[in-house]
Amino acid sequence: MAASRNGQSPGVFRANRRHFLLGGAIAGIGATTAVAADYALGSGRRPEQDPTPTPLNGSNTVPFYGEHQAGIATDAQAYATVLALDIRAGVDRDGLRRMMLILTDDAARLTQGQSALADAEPELAVAPARLTVTFGFGQRFVEIAQAEAPGWLRPLPSFGVDRLEPAFSDGDLLIQVAADDPLTIAHTARMLLKDARTFTTVRWTQNGFRRAHGSVKAGTTMRNLFGQVDGTSNPVPGTDGFDHVVWNTDGWLAGGTSVVVRRISMDLDKWDRLDRGGKEQSVGRYLSNGAPLTSSSVGEAAEFDEPDFAATSRAGFPVIPEFSHIARARSDHEDERIFRRAYNYDDRPADDAISNSGLLFISFQADVDAQFVPIQDRLDQLDLLNEWTIPIGSAVFAVPPGCLDGGYVGETILG
Amino acid sequence: MAASRNGQSPGVFRANRRHFLLGGAIAGIGATTAVAADYALGSGRRPEQDPTPTPLNGSNTVPFYGEHQAGIATDAQAYATVLALDIRAGVDRDGLRRMMLILTDDAARLTQGQSALADAEPELAVAPARLTVTFGFGQRFVEIAQAEAPGWLRPLPSFGVDRLEPAFSDGDLLIQVAADDPLTIAHTARMLLKDARTFTTVRWTQNGFRRAHGSVKAGTTMRNLFGQVDGTSNPVPGTDGFDHVVWNTDGWLAGGTSVVVRRISMDLDKWDRLDRGGKEQSVGRYLSNGAPLTSSSVGEAAEFDEPDFAATSRAGFPVIPEFSHIARARSDHEDERIFRRAYNYDDRPADDAISNSGLLFISFQADVDAQFVPIQDRLDQLDLLNEWTIPIGSAVFAVPPGCLDGGYVGETILG
Repeated sequence: MAASRNGQSPGVFRANRRHFLLGGAIAGIGATTAVAADYALGSGRRPEQDPTPTPLNGSNTVPFYGEHQAGIATDAQAYATVLALDIRAGVDRDGLRRMMLILTDDAARLTQGQSALADAEPELAVAPARLTVTFGFGQRFVEIAQAEAPGWLRPLPSFGVDRLEPAFSDGDLLIQVAADDPLTIAHTARMLLKDARTFTTVRWTQNGFRRAHGSVKAGTTMRNLFGQVDGTSNPVPGTDGFDHVVWNTDGWLAGGTSVVVRRISMDLDKWDRLDRGGKEQSVGRYLSNGAPLTSSSVGEAAEFDEPDFAATSRAGFPVIPEFSHIARARSDHEDERIFRRAYNYDDRPADDAISNSGLLFISFQADVDAQFVPIQDRLDQLDLLNEWTIPIGSAVFAVPPGCLDGGYVGETILG
Repeated sequence: MAASRNGQSPGVFRANRRHFLLGGAIAGIGATTAVAADYALGSGRRPEQDPTPTPLNGSNTVPFYGEHQAGIATDAQAYATVLALDIRAGVDRDGLRRMMLILTDDAARLTQGQSALADAEPELAVAPARLTVTFGFGQRFVEIAQAEAPGWLRPLPSFGVDRLEPAFSDGDLLIQVAADDPLTIAHTARMLLKDARTFTTVRWTQNGFRRAHGSVKAGTTMRNLFGQVDGTSNPVPGTDGFDHVVWNTDGWLAGGTSVVVRRISMDLDKWDRLDRGGKEQSVGRYLSNGAPLTSSSVGEAAEFDEPDFAATSRAGFPVIPEFSHIARARSDHEDERIFRRAYNYDDRPADDAISNSGLLFISFQADVDAQFVPIQDRLDQLDLLNEWTIPIGSAVFAVPPGCLDGGYVGETILG
């Protein structure tokens, strides 16, 4: 397919192009030298560089082709830009197929550090930094594709806590672009949007971040802007439990999954008025290490201790309040589990505010109605955290399986 | 000063607090383990982690105290959030002094990986990742401080290319927060804004990024979203040339400088319609390696070759067009130089656009009128790049010198 778009052997093209680009991208002197000079000149300032050079992580790649799309079981990258597109009127099934062929080819190249075909800024493609591109199909996409939609592929039932804004909700095609480098994400998102422009318009875009790659130990559970350890109780990729929770096994979605994207506004000012004890009670975990309140607040291992919801204080009250977030989110049903892969957002504050912050909640699960909705129902009815958080965006997409070299994402309904 | 705010010995407080926090921040298991398990289970997928663990860079710090403020000569971090605040009516010189005492204390602590006093989210302070906080004073700040303002401390003369929006222009107090970790920046910006809230309102905030720390070799000149190598011809910190260009030597600004912050919108769609040769002619440099067009387009060293503006093609035309950006920016006067420390921005596109991108241009120079304005005058009159770029924000601040432990930023006019 690659050769069909420029008539050149992709292998040769890539080798030459990469050599050419890398020559330009990795420059020799600059601020590192400058800092050393500063030090040598005896200005008294310590060098501000790492004492030892670290290996470059810009060249790390995540395989694109496979049974499942990348960007789901992939250890979450530092940044994500999530795009929701609307299909233009008049685009038919054949149009969708052509679009997904092109977008798949772009994603396959860019994730491996190669420029896309007709890439106007090929120099920006040289540092993939674990780039992944993950596609999801909305209700209307599946309709136009004339495929059978799973019952859950529709807006979520409305929850009492929701204050949804159309500017952050719904959409026909989702593209999650994630990487450890923000320049790579900006270039990739633009490249994909250029190639999708004939077929779609931008409905919304949301940017999110975690700790930078290398800031803290790999595998550290993220913290959100409330300071909470967020995502402790999550299925672990590579285990049977994860596979059961995440991968769908039905028809064209076999090897795929569903994604729920919700924008959760967090009222940091109100949160800050709560004392530390109150904050910990509202979640049911210590802020220090994320351990359940029935465990130890010290030591990294305690984070993963099982909460003891039966434990009571000397006064007879539950140690983990029954209205705390973890008590309400917990299900007795084995099947009511989801895999969370969230990002923080921190946008320009409006009016008199000093923050416009929250969580770009992203969860993957085989079946939205069977797994996500019951949890959200319980949280909607009663969850202490609702006092400080408001969902302001919501969208659901079917995430098709991955593809092999020569195939494309979406071939199971468009092929 | 630190002790005066909580009555505790800062040393003891810090040691205990850090020990406590680090226990929680560095968790043991998670996705890394998961990937290893995935591999061991023979799923056929390559591990997506680095093969070798990289040293953590979250603990890297830049000294806060010194003759000059940090964040200027500091090798540019991966991210910056730039805040411009307006002083509330009724705040007097004494108020400004109290504010700068508090903000200095916050910055001194947070940049060293310690939580600020009354920090509601102390766990977010543990990974400074080369955090710097740099303060600049606008015209009105200096007026209220009853100090003599340098003649250049006012809005820049209006240039023909400008389409300035008040939402990105001017302001009384600038805070540049820069680090290699976006969560650190979000927490720091919020902490500073909370402590400044009694005295100021937010006028504008702008977020920018470069390549992530460790993506490419340290010292690599940044690329902007046009794909250009941006910032090659820049004074090198630690050299006499840099000191001469940047540091002011007059009165209360001795050891300080000035900063010009301009938001330059870049029309990526229009730029993409230009062919590669046209793009290179408009700047006067190769896109591949940033070398001047009179040098070689291959090899990293060529980036720093001197452009030969006298060279002509066989047809007799200058190899570097006289209206190219580098030809117009270049001055015959030794003194007309500035130090650039820019960031890219990539915000949510509006309406039918697919990009809202550009450059958060930041330059430091001892004297705005003598150094920045003549360059911008020439670029305004004629610069091929003007075809694709529009300045939409502009602000000028006086950047006071640094301070020593026990002092505060601004003491040279407020003390």
